[in-house]
Amino acid sequence: MHDIQLQPLITRALEEDWGYGDWPTDICIPPDAHTQAQIIAKEPLVVACIELVTAVFAAIDNTLKVALRVSNGTAANAGEVLAVLDGRARAILKGERVALNFLAHLCGIATSTAQYVAKIADHKAQLLDTRNTTPCLRLLEKTAAAIGGARHHRLGLCDGVVIRENHIRAAGGIKPALALLQESLSPTLKVEVEITHLDQLQEALDAGADLIVLDNLSCAETALAVRLVQGRVLLEATGNIALADVEKIAATGVDFISSSAIMRSSRWSDVGLVCSDARG
Amino acid sequence: MHDIQLQPLITRALEEDWGYGDWPTDICIPPDAHTQAQIIAKEPLVVACIELVTAVFAAIDNTLKVALRVSNGTAANAGEVLAVLDGRARAILKGERVALNFLAHLCGIATSTAQYVAKIADHKAQLLDTRNTTPCLRLLEKTAAAIGGARHHRLGLCDGVVIRENHIRAAGGIKPALALLQESLSPTLKVEVEITHLDQLQEALDAGADLIVLDNLSCAETALAVRLVQGRVLLEATGNIALADVEKIAATGVDFISSSAIMRSSRWSDVGLVCSDARG
Amino acid sequence: MHDIQLQPLITRALEEDWGYGDWPTDICIPPDAHTQAQIIAKEPLVVACIELVTAVFAAIDNTLKVALRVSNGTAANAGEVLAVLDGRARAILKGERVALNFLAHLCGIATSTAQYVAKIADHKAQLLDTRNTTPCLRLLEKTAAAIGGARHHRLGLCDGVVIRENHIRAAGGIKPALALLQESLSPTLKVEVEITHLDQLQEALDAGADLIVLDNLSCAETALAVRLVQGRVLLEATGNIALADVEKIAATGVDFISSSAIMRSSRWSDVGLVCSDARG
Amino acid sequence: MHDIQLQPLITRALEEDWGYGDWPTDICIPPDAHTQAQIIAKEPLVVACIELVTAVFAAIDNTLKVALRVSNGTAANAGEVLAVLDGRARAILKGERVALNFLAHLCGIATSTAQYVAKIADHKAQLLDTRNTTPCLRLLEKTAAAIGGARHHRLGLCDGVVIRENHIRAAGGIKPALALLQESLSPTLKVEVEITHLDQLQEALDAGADLIVLDNLSCAETALAVRLVQGRVLLEATGNIALADVEKIAATGVDFISSSAIMRSSRWSDVGLVCSDARG
Amino acid sequence: MHDIQLQPLITRALEEDWGYGDWPTDICIPPDAHTQAQIIAKEPLVVACIELVTAVFAAIDNTLKVALRVSNGTAANAGEVLAVLDGRARAILKGERVALNFLAHLCGIATSTAQYVAKIADHKAQLLDTRNTTPCLRLLEKTAAAIGGARHHRLGLCDGVVIRENHIRAAGGIKPALALLQESLSPTLKVEVEITHLDQLQEALDAGADLIVLDNLSCAETALAVRLVQGRVLLEATGNIALADVEKIAATGVDFISSSAIMRSSRWSDVGLVCSDARG
Amino acid sequence: MHDIQLQPLITRALEEDWGYGDWPTDICIPPDAHTQAQIIAKEPLVVACIELVTAVFAAIDNTLKVALRVSNGTAANAGEVLAVLDGRARAILKGERVALNFLAHLCGIATSTAQYVAKIADHKAQLLDTRNTTPCLRLLEKTAAAIGGARHHRLGLCDGVVIRENHIRAAGGIKPALALLQESLSPTLKVEVEITHLDQLQEALDAGADLIVLDNLSCAETALAVRLVQGRVLLEATGNIALADVEKIAATGVDFISSSAIMRSSRWSDVGLVCSDARG
Repeated sequence: MHDIQLQPLITRALEEDWGYGDWPTDICIPPDAHTQAQIIAKEPLVVACIELVTAVFAAIDNTLKVALRVSNGTAANAGEVLAVLDGRARAILKGERVALNFLAHLCGIATSTAQYVAKIADHKAQLLDTRNTTPCLRLLEKTAAAIGGARHHRLGLCDGVVIRENHIRAAGGIKPALALLQESLSPTLKVEVEITHLDQLQEALDAGADLIVLDNLSCAETALAVRLVQGRVLLEATGNIALADVEKIAATGVDFISSSAIMRSSRWSDVGLVCSDARG
Repeated sequence: MHDIQLQPLITRALEEDWGYGDWPTDICIPPDAHTQAQIIAKEPLVVACIELVTAVFAAIDNTLKVALRVSNGTAANAGEVLAVLDGRARAILKGERVALNFLAHLCGIATSTAQYVAKIADHKAQLLDTRNTTPCLRLLEKTAAAIGGARHHRLGLCDGVVIRENHIRAAGGIKPALALLQESLSPTLKVEVEITHLDQLQEALDAGADLIVLDNLSCAETALAVRLVQGRVLLEATGNIALADVEKIAATGVDFISSSAIMRSSRWSDVGLVCSDARG
Repeated sequence: MHDIQLQPLITRALEEDWGYGDWPTDICIPPDAHTQAQIIAKEPLVVACIELVTAVFAAIDNTLKVALRVSNGTAANAGEVLAVLDGRARAILKGERVALNFLAHLCGIATSTAQYVAKIADHKAQLLDTRNTTPCLRLLEKTAAAIGGARHHRLGLCDGVVIRENHIRAAGGIKPALALLQESLSPTLKVEVEITHLDQLQEALDAGADLIVLDNLSCAETALAVRLVQGRVLLEATGNIALADVEKIAATGVDFISSSAIMRSSRWSDVGLVCSDARG
Repeated sequence: MHDIQLQPLITRALEEDWGYGDWPTDICIPPDAHTQAQIIAKEPLVVACIELVTAVFAAIDNTLKVALRVSNGTAANAGEVLAVLDGRARAILKGERVALNFLAHLCGIATSTAQYVAKIADHKAQLLDTRNTTPCLRLLEKTAAAIGGARHHRLGLCDGVVIRENHIRAAGGIKPALALLQESLSPTLKVEVEITHLDQLQEALDAGADLIVLDNLSCAETALAVRLVQGRVLLEATGNIALADVEKIAATGVDFISSSAIMRSSRWSDVGLVCSDARG
Repeated sequence: MHDIQLQPLITRALEEDWGYGDWPTDICIPPDAHTQAQIIAKEPLVVACIELVTAVFAAIDNTLKVALRVSNGTAANAGEVLAVLDGRARAILKGERVALNFLAHLCGIATSTAQYVAKIADHKAQLLDTRNTTPCLRLLEKTAAAIGGARHHRLGLCDGVVIRENHIRAAGGIKPALALLQESLSPTLKVEVEITHLDQLQEALDAGADLIVLDNLSCAETALAVRLVQGRVLLEATGNIALADVEKIAATGVDFISSSAIMRSSRWSDVGLVCSDARG
Repeated sequence: MHDIQLQPLITRALEEDWGYGDWPTDICIPPDAHTQAQIIAKEPLVVACIELVTAVFAAIDNTLKVALRVSNGTAANAGEVLAVLDGRARAILKGERVALNFLAHLCGIATSTAQYVAKIADHKAQLLDTRNTTPCLRLLEKTAAAIGGARHHRLGLCDGVVIRENHIRAAGGIKPALALLQESLSPTLKVEVEITHLDQLQEALDAGADLIVLDNLSCAETALAVRLVQGRVLLEATGNIALADVEKIAATGVDFISSSAIMRSSRWSDVGLVCSDARG
């Protein structure tokens, strides 16, 4: 995620956390007091978007030194130091909560994603992320999922076309829907058709779908679909798939498993900031 | 949350989800096709911020009719209809994911909060929210927590003063820190002192703290603090308190338990949108 | 283009045209003076984005009545009335220049595009737009091109992948570049490879490109490429193609011709606003 | 144009071109790969707003070195190097299209303007720009026109007063319109009256107009107006004046010729970016 | 001031006043409680920008009825009702402070301006406003000054040209400075020259200044300048002119007196909001 | 006030002052002309927010050197140099008016506040600021008041709770209003009750108010309130208190006097910028 995209998010997050100002810090901490602080993993986690720590504190005080000790994708242990800060105590205190909120939330997603990915490591299937993301944070959350091992599905409605029940009905079937798209859609985009029953599979194949997503089909149905398709199109399984079930689905031979649970059910990683003594 | 505060969030969320546009909808669905749709709880949940459904679709197409069927705080059952939409199919499809993402995330927080609140219902202690919130969504998430039964702690750094280790050290102790604040802080704000060891309790009391927050003290220590304080100040227990432990802490007699877990560990509620047939 | 995307553009355009205010109108025209006005094509043109007329005047004064007399894509004659306005004279004068600037610029693009499209009407090839668009107006200009008969190529860097010389060199060849993409790119996106010499064609085919763009190849080379590829991938010709040359290229049998000239060389259509007498 | 005014334009243009991100570059090009590139004129052109090249790339990566090789107003030859870039290949690829779109569009306007200016070089008349500019780009386009040799007419509705038909009618004539303005308009602004028939000339003179604009008058009428006025006010000829006609109008002796064609009919200059090999 | 210009100001002012929210109102006042309120002049004042009252409350709750009882420019008496509000009590309480702050500040400026204007009513001289305005509120404050009877001087640096000491020195004198401007400045703008000594008057006249501003000249010098100029250019007196001195200056026969004191020394008018009983 | 909060204000103020551009400076002053300038107090004043001078010029040209010669809170004499600027003459001229407008306005508030504070120096009472501030400038104006010696009252509606007539009526009395707040308000906030008659005092005390504000009570009533309360809660006197009256009120023994007059009636301090000769 480029700085141009990140800066407005960071500014809004800081304004949201400060409101009119950080009174206790401005009143109790002298402007030139310096301190050192460490950001620490308080449980095992997969590091994600650690560069946000740098960006948050740089937005507050560009004289603060931020040394990152791990890179994205690192599986950090409990107690491991993720970053070291050195500079004005006021800047560290003003940025602490926002930096930790970003980091804990995104490491949580990477960690959760890595668990799903590990479950299917022995299969062809790749884990895909979804559009089930916290409003206003999609790019960050999808980046964290990718760090955790997922592959991106479309980022939004414009960079991937999924034809669902409503489109099909309005167009009068899968075939006419695809015909419409093949006339005017950018030729750089594939077309994916979502089916909710196995008996739609042949129509989707005949219509020339590039991918077919199987929405909430059983493992048996999914396996049958894999056999019927024989590699002619890519197959994606979806539908609220729990960590316990993901391997069974991978074992059917599908190409992709998309999982909203990596975001919907992830919990924040536990990260903390520990300050050293303030120096005058 | 007032519309003036909500509109920028909704606009950003829609832009994020659309990117350059919703090609399949714009190509396959005629502009005047109408449909009806229902937003449904797919599991038991506590309804929160349901007015966002109205606001999201109004931002897209103000001719769309949105009828809310439940109010905030309702404990909805699996299968219960939360809202009914009636209008242009395009508008419904363009708003579906954003409306559901907001709703699922916030109902998840309200539901998680309600579980904590239920555990301590027989005790004096009130559950407080924290500043551990997803960046850019604090006001919404805290509103959801309040709907779930929590009471607000400070929204940001300006509307509640908590003196922590760094402030104390920089000021030379709890007493001098409070003295500084009592000189120049708005008299409309209380001062809360965070202590990490029981032996700081007397100093905080003597310094005139309005509230004392016990950070990661054991149940026994917390109970002892309650006895020592004898109601002279309000006491708040904090520190990554799990659902399983919350009642034990309430039983110590503290006034408040602040819980970051209601946000950090909440998972999204399962809500879905079901469209009827598109009409010409 | 949705209103949510359009409003900021309109607001900026009006602020840009007004500066501190429209002194002569505010001083000479009474606030309640009403007038009627017509927006007229002063030369033959293809109508594009006519709804902007409605949107611009609605942003200024939502009591003004705007009746559109033509729809997008209409080939209007010189003298044809495109829209009729009725309401406060001040609003009409304050919006006139901005509405006409949008309309003349975008009708110009649609008209220019339609000329290219007409040239290749007897061939399979479809005209594609490009990313050569006026900064900040891409979505509007591409919409106008589509109204003129072009099909969209990618809107930006995220919704279509074109591998060009630098990517190929950095990855060590077309094949390794595609291998990298096939690992981590969203499976909803095709991959297009740009080649500048015919001898790269086979490598691109072997690497599994979904589309191949022939950059500045001669007609003879293009025709040869079509024969070599035999429909296995889609072929796109590109490279500053003038109106005089476009049919020859279409005759080679390529699937697509992308043309930056429809924007780079289009001139504004001539449209004007004629007011009736102001009424008291 | 000051940086404060330029930055929002550049940010919007980059966001528009990137959407969610530049996948091929981020996937195929290592973050630390460096390259050199040249921006080259591919046809003769007048250089305008070349500092935008610096500003666009600085917004992306402030470690990139941009050396401008020409200054604004330079008549560059085909093949001439306009700027040299040196730094991260990713930054160069991410900024290429936006930088070229700005530059090609604005050099096109300067080049077109210079052609008009050259035609009237032997006459007193000065070329003026107009408010016929692409929405949201007025200041840039007018700057390019000035570099091409035009003089600014008013930038917007607030910094120059032109009384047109509607104002005159609403006020009850040229004289009462000017009387209203002379009461409350800032004394720092002149008043220009637009006349569409020669028989309005005397009324405009009598009313005390500072300038008179002759809208679509013939050359003969214009020449007659010059004789009648005898230098008492400044005279401006206007009305869709083609390059072929501009000298004849200048020869009438008018003070100014305002031309919307320098923008409406300009086509983009041909500029390109050529990269060297990426280095590791 | 048009709504497009006003809305961002109102939104920012409300966000500034609310912060995270208006807790006492949201907690103590039921959402549907209605009330009536009056906005009242608590001292004699000149009404200015009264439409802001409508705009502020409409931004909060567009069901609230706002009936204005006076128009701009009215000299209201102590106790006079300026506007009547009827609707939700919450909306009235949330908008009260912002609406009153705008109104009191701007009526204060109009009232102060009217005092200056009254002093010079018997003279030719007109009062002009200046660029000494509160940052971010210039257009509103100048509008209030105009309502109070002042005429606008330039709104900013672009819509009126004043050549001051630095420009003169850099250009090598008044004459060369004007020569530069006469070459490239928009011909719609006059040029005003600021002189600080009477002996610069002739040079300014000779150089062709349209207006001459006498900066801090004594009354005697000003009167002498009027005699010397004999109406060939307009003369403006300026320089921290107190209310007590303004008539003496007008009596010299200058055309304009510009006064920063109408803003710098104005105090807020006293206006209040009185609610009736809340109804259920 | 942090830079993140300040930058948007400065950008808006400059855009407001420049409009399309500073023509005389851009035309008459060469881009590389350098000059020195001093910002000078032209009358005695209390310096406030002097860092804005640095911030304004840095936003325009970060090569300009700004040396502050005084710190906030300094009582400067007439003629005293507040800051010295050294750098491009264009940058100095483009920032002059905005920098001076900020500084003069805010020093005016600090100076006015210091006069009130001096009057009550011998009493316990502290001066509080209010929410009567110029829209969009509250944080700056309150900062200036604090520099002048005032203590902050709440910054907005969220960081301090004042129960006024409407809240009391809607809740059915002071006691029920406080009961509602004590249930759901953040425990970090105190509750202040505004009373308009002495006979409400006992009810406010009984209800458990943390502070009581006496709105427009006479000195005698205020003194009586102090005696009745006997230090059990803090007492604040308010209500359009003039400089002449403030000591009498302080003498009653109240804890706080809140004064809107320090903003409503302050006039700008007189500060000016004097340039040296431009150097080539």
